[in-house]
Amino acid sequence: MKDDIKIVVDTIGGDNGAEVCVKGAVEGLKNNPNVKLIYLVGHKPQIEGYLSELNYDKKRIEIIDAREEITPNEPPVKAVREKKNSSLVVGLNLVKQGKADCFISSGSSGAILAGGQFIVGRAKGVKRTPLATLLPTSRKPSLLLDAGANVDAKPEVLLQFAEMGSIYMKEICGVKKPRVAIVNIGMEEEKGNQLVKATYPLLAADEKIHFIGSIEAREIPFGKADVILCEAFVGNVILKLYEGLGKMILSEIKTSLLSSIKAKIGAVFIKDALKGTVAKFNPSDKGGAPLLGLNGLVVKVHGNAKEAEITSAIAQCATFVENDVKEKIITGFQKETIDDDEPDTDQEGNDE
Amino acid sequence: MKDDIKIVVDTIGGDNGAEVCVKGAVEGLKNNPNVKLIYLVGHKPQIEGYLSELNYDKKRIEIIDAREEITPNEPPVKAVREKKNSSLVVGLNLVKQGKADCFISSGSSGAILAGGQFIVGRAKGVKRTPLATLLPTSRKPSLLLDAGANVDAKPEVLLQFAEMGSIYMKEICGVKKPRVAIVNIGMEEEKGNQLVKATYPLLAADEKIHFIGSIEAREIPFGKADVILCEAFVGNVILKLYEGLGKMILSEIKTSLLSSIKAKIGAVFIKDALKGTVAKFNPSDKGGAPLLGLNGLVVKVHGNAKEAEITSAIAQCATFVENDVKEKIITGFQKETIDDDEPDTDQEGNDE
Repeated sequence: MKDDIKIVVDTIGGDNGAEVCVKGAVEGLKNNPNVKLIYLVGHKPQIEGYLSELNYDKKRIEIIDAREEITPNEPPVKAVREKKNSSLVVGLNLVKQGKADCFISSGSSGAILAGGQFIVGRAKGVKRTPLATLLPTSRKPSLLLDAGANVDAKPEVLLQFAEMGSIYMKEICGVKKPRVAIVNIGMEEEKGNQLVKATYPLLAADEKIHFIGSIEAREIPFGKADVILCEAFVGNVILKLYEGLGKMILSEIKTSLLSSIKAKIGAVFIKDALKGTVAKFNPSDKGGAPLLGLNGLVVKVHGNAKEAEITSAIAQCATFVENDVKEKIITGFQKETIDDDEPDTDQEGNDE
Repeated sequence: MKDDIKIVVDTIGGDNGAEVCVKGAVEGLKNNPNVKLIYLVGHKPQIEGYLSELNYDKKRIEIIDAREEITPNEPPVKAVREKKNSSLVVGLNLVKQGKADCFISSGSSGAILAGGQFIVGRAKGVKRTPLATLLPTSRKPSLLLDAGANVDAKPEVLLQFAEMGSIYMKEICGVKKPRVAIVNIGMEEEKGNQLVKATYPLLAADEKIHFIGSIEAREIPFGKADVILCEAFVGNVILKLYEGLGKMILSEIKTSLLSSIKAKIGAVFIKDALKGTVAKFNPSDKGGAPLLGLNGLVVKVHGNAKEAEITSAIAQCATFVENDVKEKIITGFQKETIDDDEPDTDQEGNDE
């Protein structure tokens, strides 16, 4: 078992400030004895202030002072290039330099994607680095990828995503034989747009994955596949509609439970039972969204992440390193893509 | 006021059989005195059997015997070409021949799309015929289009869809100045895939619509736009995820309400209040999904449509004809597209 795992936690950029990051990191250290060191990057005096109230092993935390912030409103690539002293850039550089294995941030999605690609860099053989995310379903969570990193990607890129997603679900989520499905608008092989039609046979011929065919979007919430493969534009729509529709329905139900005295009485009785349902849609125990295929793990947690989500992202990172997921991804691709790797300049995030 | 509206109701292909179609049609006649005639197409003796139990004006119903069925498992274009005596083909031909204005069916989506395009045909000036559908939101319903008819469509095609959608929302749903938004993965103009980036400026320059910019999928359930514009693959994913996720969440809540005696007691109290929320997701009072831009109106109702959905689809058709929506669509396009109309052979449904 690896016991020298090092993780960077970016404490700037989240809606809930540095406090939840610091507390979540300390809790993560307690839960994961194999994590040797956590770098807390951000406003040093502020971080020290929060730490002073907590019990933790001082040898296992190092504070890096980097106070500049990249906001979601800035063009990400430009911001990452110019704001050399931002917590995000400084933190990602720790991974690039091999001082850390993983990076966790609740900051600007675009900057995390761009920074992950440009600073940490793609692993050898990887054509593109997809953003993956776990979606709650009526069964176990499914991994959706690409959830927004590489729009207009090509079939052979999607094929790699399917393989990375399979490895991730196997190694991180313990799914023995992950079922891979491609998002489509019908179930038959001849259905779909040009991209899906071209990708389908590649998936069907790939012996490294357990491809089960097309999945229609209406089946996604019922956990019919473990890896939900799609192009980034479609994936981002799925991810955001999931969030928005879940929020809207639960809010409508809440409103209706306050609509009459009778309903209010009933609400008291059903409160405990409903908690379980709501919890299923609470991402805090599932870690964050990993950007896969990099020379290290970059994890995007929600902008409104609280302590628990940071803590679970640390467990996610620890498992990632422990199970050698990066190496497993690279090993697969180096063999097969030694001749057709594309130059870095061709890399395109959706936020450029 | 027009009082000679003629509507075809296909009684074959729905999950609930001909009975709901016949009953829904008779109810629709009562509610819409300006509907002069409804053709009930299908198994004549069966239709006569259901009619014999109902009170209706015999002059306003004509039965057309056409017993062949097109199933969802058949390749739609082939089926529409070969099954000349199917209720679907016979019914669509009534519209083509000018004997009816509108066609309503709960049969195979693919066959309805293909048949609408090939039999009824595109109106002059219309490049493509989008499938539109009303999505429930926390405010009024929004019109999503294209919900699945024309995958990989071009920017100028999407522009027409935006105009058609605006006219539909104005004339059928009474929205005075429909807000049009394009589905995107970020809010800024430079965000998106190639298609969205190319379409955005066309929309922004179009004075016939009230374009409000991009909409992220998480905002769709909150009614931030009246017309939700997107390419058909994305639209179909949105439509189906809406259905699936709504179904999953409501089913999870139902399960949790049965999970303990306490919750069961509460459920009795909240039942009435929750009905309102569930009803919002019930499509039966909103008519069906129109295929716009044809020489007539073709409406796809849900496969599991009950009487009420057929009845409301009849009201939808009556309003469509009364308000001259077809003419309003054609008038707009004939002027502007007189030179760049594309040949029919270029037409492609997603189900070919």
